[in-house]
Amino acid sequence: MDNIEKLNNLFPHIREYQKLASELYSINDVFQDNGGKLLQVLMITGLQNLDGSREGNDAVDSEGNEYELKSVNINLTQSFSTNHHLNQHIIDKYRKVDWIFAVYKDIELVEIYKMTPEMIEPYYTKWETQYKTTGKDINNPKIPLKFVRENGIEIYKNKEGADFFYAPIINDKEHIELNKIKQGELF
Amino acid sequence: MDNIEKLNNLFPHIREYQKLASELYSINDVFQDNGGKLLQVLMITGLQNLDGSREGNDAVDSEGNEYELKSVNINLTQSFSTNHHLNQHIIDKYRKVDWIFAVYKDIELVEIYKMTPEMIEPYYTKWETQYKTTGKDINNPKIPLKFVRENGIEIYKNKEGADFFYAPIINDKEHIELNKIKQGELF
Repeated sequence: MDNIEKLNNLFPHIREYQKLASELYSINDVFQDNGGKLLQVLMITGLQNLDGSREGNDAVDSEGNEYELKSVNINLTQSFSTNHHLNQHIIDKYRKVDWIFAVYKDIELVEIYKMTPEMIEPYYTKWETQYKTTGKDINNPKIPLKFVRENGIEIYKNKEGADFFYAPIINDKEHIELNKIKQGELF
Repeated sequence: MDNIEKLNNLFPHIREYQKLASELYSINDVFQDNGGKLLQVLMITGLQNLDGSREGNDAVDSEGNEYELKSVNINLTQSFSTNHHLNQHIIDKYRKVDWIFAVYKDIELVEIYKMTPEMIEPYYTKWETQYKTTGKDINNPKIPLKFVRENGIEIYKNKEGADFFYAPIINDKEHIELNKIKQGELF
């Protein structure tokens, strides 16, 4: 079988994958900006994509809680990027939501972690101090994968090449616990 | 069939697509930087990928001729990006090779054009004048798709969703013609 034939055999499945991404999550190009990876995280966690053009976070659960989504390819680097112009406004935005960290080996999703604002606070404090001291935007401060693995809540862990399984964010015990606290704080 | 099941049915094909990309072209992540689109262009044209980290162009044919590869998603924009710090050095590099322009509708490859240095010269002249006048790098000057369609050599044209076909760069008549001229110029 020549290469073009291989391509023609595989591409109908790529089109189906793209169709899922477009229809369920408005991801119009799986080959750009990790679109085809984001699709996996959203399907596994049950989160919905938020429009990237709006001021806000990356994803939302069925109860309306928003999340920041971060991903890393551990074949390339061992830490998560944040924002190329991090300032007080962005730190304030970050502090309001839980973060979801997805870990890939190239295209293979191997781990997902969740971190609450309290868990990430050491970084927020550090960045805030730096921002207030220098008065300058911080260029993409990193969160090391090691920190996330040691301090985060494991949502999903799998072997490369294995089947995916559903690991909804909304149903994990810690989330329900946290939600109770949040609701309690409203009154 | 639930979403995770759909994902599990499709992903083995994605893995095969990724395997082709890795093995044939050292593209380790089809979901990033248009990797999964570059794969299509390379297979169709018979060009080989050049390591992006080296000083040089993007692709090479079986005779050792190098090429700049550009792509555009016409669902997003109608012109090709060049370089965010375009200067004389880069213009000189550009002038030495033919360019391949790939046109996508999201993930669907619909057209490929080739342009020789002579065809692109109006832009080189314009950029060179601007660079010499201002002394500053030019931030990503564009080449409009309209210009490429009107002045380039059509290599490949297909409908969205159709099977791919082989359209090698090296064998097209114009290339052979051009090669003769180039060889003639050596003596």
